[in-house]
Amino acid sequence: MTAIAIIGGGGMIGRKIAHRLQHGGLAGVAALEVTLYDRVFPGVGLTGMNRQRIEFGDPAAARALAAGRPDVIFHLAAIVSGEAERDFDLGWQVNVLSFWALLMALRAEHLASGGTWRPRLVLASSAAAFGPPFAAEGIDDSFICEPRSSYGAQKVIAEHMVGDFSRKGFIDGISLRLPTITVRPGQANAALSSCFSAIIREPLRGRRAVLPLPEDTRHIHASPRAAAGFFLHAATLDTARLDGRRALNMPSVSCTVAEQIDCLRAFAGSEAVALIDHRPDPAVSGIVCNWPQRFRTARAQELGFRVEARFDDILAAYVEDDMAADRSEALP
Amino acid sequence: MTAIAIIGGGGMIGRKIAHRLQHGGLAGVAALEVTLYDRVFPGVGLTGMNRQRIEFGDPAAARALAAGRPDVIFHLAAIVSGEAERDFDLGWQVNVLSFWALLMALRAEHLASGGTWRPRLVLASSAAAFGPPFAAEGIDDSFICEPRSSYGAQKVIAEHMVGDFSRKGFIDGISLRLPTITVRPGQANAALSSCFSAIIREPLRGRRAVLPLPEDTRHIHASPRAAAGFFLHAATLDTARLDGRRALNMPSVSCTVAEQIDCLRAFAGSEAVALIDHRPDPAVSGIVCNWPQRFRTARAQELGFRVEARFDDILAAYVEDDMAADRSEALP
Repeated sequence: MTAIAIIGGGGMIGRKIAHRLQHGGLAGVAALEVTLYDRVFPGVGLTGMNRQRIEFGDPAAARALAAGRPDVIFHLAAIVSGEAERDFDLGWQVNVLSFWALLMALRAEHLASGGTWRPRLVLASSAAAFGPPFAAEGIDDSFICEPRSSYGAQKVIAEHMVGDFSRKGFIDGISLRLPTITVRPGQANAALSSCFSAIIREPLRGRRAVLPLPEDTRHIHASPRAAAGFFLHAATLDTARLDGRRALNMPSVSCTVAEQIDCLRAFAGSEAVALIDHRPDPAVSGIVCNWPQRFRTARAQELGFRVEARFDDILAAYVEDDMAADRSEALP
Repeated sequence: MTAIAIIGGGGMIGRKIAHRLQHGGLAGVAALEVTLYDRVFPGVGLTGMNRQRIEFGDPAAARALAAGRPDVIFHLAAIVSGEAERDFDLGWQVNVLSFWALLMALRAEHLASGGTWRPRLVLASSAAAFGPPFAAEGIDDSFICEPRSSYGAQKVIAEHMVGDFSRKGFIDGISLRLPTITVRPGQANAALSSCFSAIIREPLRGRRAVLPLPEDTRHIHASPRAAAGFFLHAATLDTARLDGRRALNMPSVSCTVAEQIDCLRAFAGSEAVALIDHRPDPAVSGIVCNWPQRFRTARAQELGFRVEARFDDILAAYVEDDMAADRSEALP
């Protein structure tokens, strides 16, 4: 029996991963036991899934999780970019100090096992790890991390913790630098990148959406479906192939906001596009426009990570996977 | 009156900085008050200097230091590379968690001052922030940090903390990525790079020295005199010129161990060289040979940082500044 822990399992990507595991399993693994850990869980959509309510950062909870010796840990709990920028203390506490406490609990259990238990840990990192100036042709895994946000700094730091704990053999870690996950279903979150999803999702359920960025803003995207795929692929990847460089830029689709809007128009017409309100917000664009606009991901692709080819495909993934649920939620 | 705090002021570079401040002052600053903070101080050589005995990592000590609102803080306290590799907990505790507690104390005082007090903080970082593969022509400030030691990971993390606290305006920080400081006077320390100094210093006082590395090992060096100069220069540098990238590779002399030994031979003859015992140690070379062999430091040099031109000059600095004291210490 292979045990999988999803920290932040109540969140959108955590639940996508759990569903994929429930319905499709994991490559090469016969029997799975999946447990979701989070502070809160949605009321629906988790039928038949083990749930553990924890305060992330509670040392006792970290020890209890480690004591279960899961084979794979997906770590998705985070204070996202907008909230980490507003609440400096909370962002550092959760994204760095609580993550540190988790790693130390894993190390203690590794040592208690006599070194026989060494979990695969897959950390959700972010393109926010990078800052400008960027090369016009995009940036690859060897580009320097110079974040321009607290969230980005915290993610880079967590990556280095994963790197050193892995080098020492306490865990076997991988950090996935995710592009923005678009189209995010359900409610908007506090990420500064939230608008990239809102301008598609909200018009498709007949609601207005605010666009705080110029239409020529170029950005990188992957669908929630692709993001879940990244984590599942990382769960069983041979980490010897990483040659000690355990942070990977994930494949992504690079496009402008205008191209996103063109896709929306092609699918739902000009009346949908008319629901987008242009309200430039320098506080948002000041950070979002400092995120990478193109990822070069030959390394991740050689390692087998896959993403959509165009934003059309990302929109299609949303239509297939999530639009109906979002629309039913929108009914009065 | 400009107040300067030197954390790790009892150590070799801290004392060099203090002496320079005592005897030469600081560019453009009329009156100085210097305080050294450390766990222990040497019994000699600190005449007329303010000393505060603190346990670095004690939150009360960090608060007390911050409450004095020093204008400049030199931060040199660290668990060095060899010890941090042996004692995982201690290295992370001091180099990351205690440094975090200091930054939080500085931020609290900054906020208590209504934002008027924003200290210049100069962090001693290290070439160990980098890991291979390196470009043959050397690496500049835009090279990715992929450390291959716990010490290196801890320093990169501290750099990112300095970066984010500075971006937020709580402090005005600079991280100096130091090459190996050679010739280090006095006793050997627990740094894995300690041998680069020992093979010069020990023969010059008639003692044997162990060389655990191959003679063709190429490495980067600066004298203690140059290192003190880096910190003094960083104390008053206009940080607007850093354009948000606050970690700087310091100028250094790149040479092989064989070239170091040639300089020793030219100065002290073959009988001095004969005191070097070649005892290859894979545990040392496995880490030291993963440190950069050449720094490209055009950026730091444009900003006014200066180092010796050749290893001959580094040896000459030792002879002028420290050799007599080391030799008298060597008397039975």
